[in-house]
Amino acid sequence: MNATTHLIGKPPKDSAVEMTELVLPSHTNAVNTIFGGQVVAWMDIAGAICAQRHSKRSCVTASIDALHFLCKIFIGQVVVIRANVNYAHKTSMEIGIRVESEDPKTGDRNHTASGYFTYVAVDDAGTPRPVPPVTPETEQEKQWYQEAQERRAARLALVDKLKKKG
Amino acid sequence: MNATTHLIGKPPKDSAVEMTELVLPSHTNAVNTIFGGQVVAWMDIAGAICAQRHSKRSCVTASIDALHFLCKIFIGQVVVIRANVNYAHKTSMEIGIRVESEDPKTGDRNHTASGYFTYVAVDDAGTPRPVPPVTPETEQEKQWYQEAQERRAARLALVDKLKKKG
Amino acid sequence: MNATTHLIGKPPKDSAVEMTELVLPSHTNAVNTIFGGQVVAWMDIAGAICAQRHSKRSCVTASIDALHFLCKIFIGQVVVIRANVNYAHKTSMEIGIRVESEDPKTGDRNHTASGYFTYVAVDDAGTPRPVPPVTPETEQEKQWYQEAQERRAARLALVDKLKKKG
Amino acid sequence: MNATTHLIGKPPKDSAVEMTELVLPSHTNAVNTIFGGQVVAWMDIAGAICAQRHSKRSCVTASIDALHFLCKIFIGQVVVIRANVNYAHKTSMEIGIRVESEDPKTGDRNHTASGYFTYVAVDDAGTPRPVPPVTPETEQEKQWYQEAQERRAARLALVDKLKKKG
Amino acid sequence: MNATTHLIGKPPKDSAVEMTELVLPSHTNAVNTIFGGQVVAWMDIAGAICAQRHSKRSCVTASIDALHFLCKIFIGQVVVIRANVNYAHKTSMEIGIRVESEDPKTGDRNHTASGYFTYVAVDDAGTPRPVPPVTPETEQEKQWYQEAQERRAARLALVDKLKKKG
Amino acid sequence: MNATTHLIGKPPKDSAVEMTELVLPSHTNAVNTIFGGQVVAWMDIAGAICAQRHSKRSCVTASIDALHFLCKIFIGQVVVIRANVNYAHKTSMEIGIRVESEDPKTGDRNHTASGYFTYVAVDDAGTPRPVPPVTPETEQEKQWYQEAQERRAARLALVDKLKKKG
Repeated sequence: MNATTHLIGKPPKDSAVEMTELVLPSHTNAVNTIFGGQVVAWMDIAGAICAQRHSKRSCVTASIDALHFLCKIFIGQVVVIRANVNYAHKTSMEIGIRVESEDPKTGDRNHTASGYFTYVAVDDAGTPRPVPPVTPETEQEKQWYQEAQERRAARLALVDKLKKKG
Repeated sequence: MNATTHLIGKPPKDSAVEMTELVLPSHTNAVNTIFGGQVVAWMDIAGAICAQRHSKRSCVTASIDALHFLCKIFIGQVVVIRANVNYAHKTSMEIGIRVESEDPKTGDRNHTASGYFTYVAVDDAGTPRPVPPVTPETEQEKQWYQEAQERRAARLALVDKLKKKG
Repeated sequence: MNATTHLIGKPPKDSAVEMTELVLPSHTNAVNTIFGGQVVAWMDIAGAICAQRHSKRSCVTASIDALHFLCKIFIGQVVVIRANVNYAHKTSMEIGIRVESEDPKTGDRNHTASGYFTYVAVDDAGTPRPVPPVTPETEQEKQWYQEAQERRAARLALVDKLKKKG
Repeated sequence: MNATTHLIGKPPKDSAVEMTELVLPSHTNAVNTIFGGQVVAWMDIAGAICAQRHSKRSCVTASIDALHFLCKIFIGQVVVIRANVNYAHKTSMEIGIRVESEDPKTGDRNHTASGYFTYVAVDDAGTPRPVPPVTPETEQEKQWYQEAQERRAARLALVDKLKKKG
Repeated sequence: MNATTHLIGKPPKDSAVEMTELVLPSHTNAVNTIFGGQVVAWMDIAGAICAQRHSKRSCVTASIDALHFLCKIFIGQVVVIRANVNYAHKTSMEIGIRVESEDPKTGDRNHTASGYFTYVAVDDAGTPRPVPPVTPETEQEKQWYQEAQERRAARLALVDKLKKKG
Repeated sequence: MNATTHLIGKPPKDSAVEMTELVLPSHTNAVNTIFGGQVVAWMDIAGAICAQRHSKRSCVTASIDALHFLCKIFIGQVVVIRANVNYAHKTSMEIGIRVESEDPKTGDRNHTASGYFTYVAVDDAGTPRPVPPVTPETEQEKQWYQEAQERRAARLALVDKLKKKG
């Protein structure tokens, strides 16, 4: 019997997150664009909320993969961060996170960054707890579900290797 | 001729903002609930983005009115902030902002705070610049538009009084 | 019998607060003036300290009203925030907060912002607790006391309406 | 001719600073008392404002001496920081800074920390510029003036030594 | 002719970075362990410094890969972050970053997180500029150099795909 | 019998700390150099980690002495902070902290600031607890050990005076 069989599957749209932020001087680096670590911090919060909504538990970050910054973000721009759960297995969830920046003068949006964040649901003692399966509905969601399964296998192999090396 | 006649009216939905935040220990006060100033800072960012989207200009906060905290927000809760433009006049816009908190264990949401924020659109030199009129579409938007006009009259009277007293 | 009869009245001067801050780059927005949310955060801390001094209890923010920004504040300026208790009723207090900015080259001060903040005194479990009455002494304090009573009635009506709408 | 002869002396009371802060969870260390670096950051801001008020110029921190933490400060306490200019010489000023913490339940205050901060007044290019002499008025101010002269001699000897060692 | 031929190769040890941080309450999430976004922000700063030391230019984050959190980090623990340049190609560098946490009572260290960060060197106008090749010296460095080349190919394929989808 | 006799002496190298930081806009003051309080906050964290490593306990800052800023630090520069334990007596340790800034274009380093920080080791209840003696090994460490003893005597005299004055 699978540890998650008693948990009812949920579609990604039930836990989707939209965050909107404004780039202020305190977010920038020495060349007047946003500091990369700040974007990741926002992505991580959006992802943790998405995982928490899917699992109805506190969630901790387990991994970040394929996070790419595609273009620069400047002071005064608006940043829109969207998080969707792609796949869940036992106690962990892969969340796909997409960042767009919006030009304040035109409203034009650019795809700025994307990445995959994995979270583990935990109880108050910090012990991992089972999460509901994801039930993809759209063709897009089904593709994300499939790809996330493949990434999960690759990640597990790497973590095993890291833990063996200590 | 009105300073905004050449600007085409825009409906509130074109500039609506949704922000989602997670309450961390660094946001709290000494009694383990969120620090009021932190909620206002988030509301002000949501409002500034909404005003910026409506005006396609940088916007500075001019006033805050009738901001009420209706219930407490705790560590680990999710906060959802929504901002809509109610009314615009010459260079200023009134943005209505609503805050809901979400119980991470159940997903239940509470209406936590609401308030009216006024912003002025400025150019790069900081000079106020005309903004497009608001064209309310729904009955709700039309009511907000009407009420905002009344609040604007009351606010102007008070600012005049403050400036006279110095 | 009134819930506060056993609490001895206190004059505003016993709980008055003066805060002084320096505007640093981390406080500013994209147009090089101070970020509105930062000013409100400072006002809220000054107000919370004033309410705490009057009630000798932890205090949480209940509302913000008629907060107006009258002129811009720039990097390098000094900001002086003064908070005074205007009125108290049962478990809540209205604090008037005034912000002045100081030109570092001349020492000239401008009245920059003002607003009314309401706080509720709470015990360690977060339950509202009675606070001492305010005993205004000067003519100015008596006028603030009177006006605060009127604002309180208006605020209660609005909160009732918000809670009914949910 | 002394570089400051054309600058008119000013008494310490013209530049005295009072800051009030509330200790929030974000200011604390792992043992639930305030993080020492946070107290120093507040003292440095108070001192920089005091030096700026005396010199009417931007000021940068040159040294910190004899800063002692005398007792612990806890979450929820109010911190009051007072800064006074003790002495000025050419382009530098010694500011004495005293920190008191206030028990929120009783209003009792404790002397929590003290220290001497030295600032240099600079122009927009960062070049040191002469500051007005200090004209102490009370007996206490005269004693501080005298002691600060002695500390200055000791500091100069040490900085010379550090610069020689590189 | 390769864009980097005029740049002299440098060994990883010339740009290696060691950062040490103390976990304070302001770094934590709702379950009393460190917030994942905070760890990534520290890793990104360590990586940016390492890239800057190798290239002698400002560097911006281009991607994050295979970042795994292997165990929890608690308040009061020390975190040691080490960054080494693995490989450089034209204007970009892959930096390997390893995080260890130290138990304050025993001094024991755990391998807590690892990841690969890619940076691009830019001039003051933000234009990418060539960086020196990496000349690995030890067997370990040679292995990292080889693996980084393979990861680079995989990353480029993914970024192409993302840019095509927009 | 001395309170620390049962604790085995430890050489400074066992607790030495190296921190590396990058100067971002959020660290700066109004004249584009780093804010002094930020440097002290970094020094205090490095010192607390060093004291914690020597004592294997939580440590609180007791005093700061002879902290001198020798030259300016600019946005984009790297700051390297090194902390070494000079001397320990009963429950307290003197940590010497040195700050260097690194020019990102050349890699050249300047000695930017130095100071002496004293920490007290405490148990979970905040009670001071004995720490191991320092066993200096090099000539330099022996000189630091000797000088720290002399500074300790001067500090104790001053704290006594402050506590008498209240």
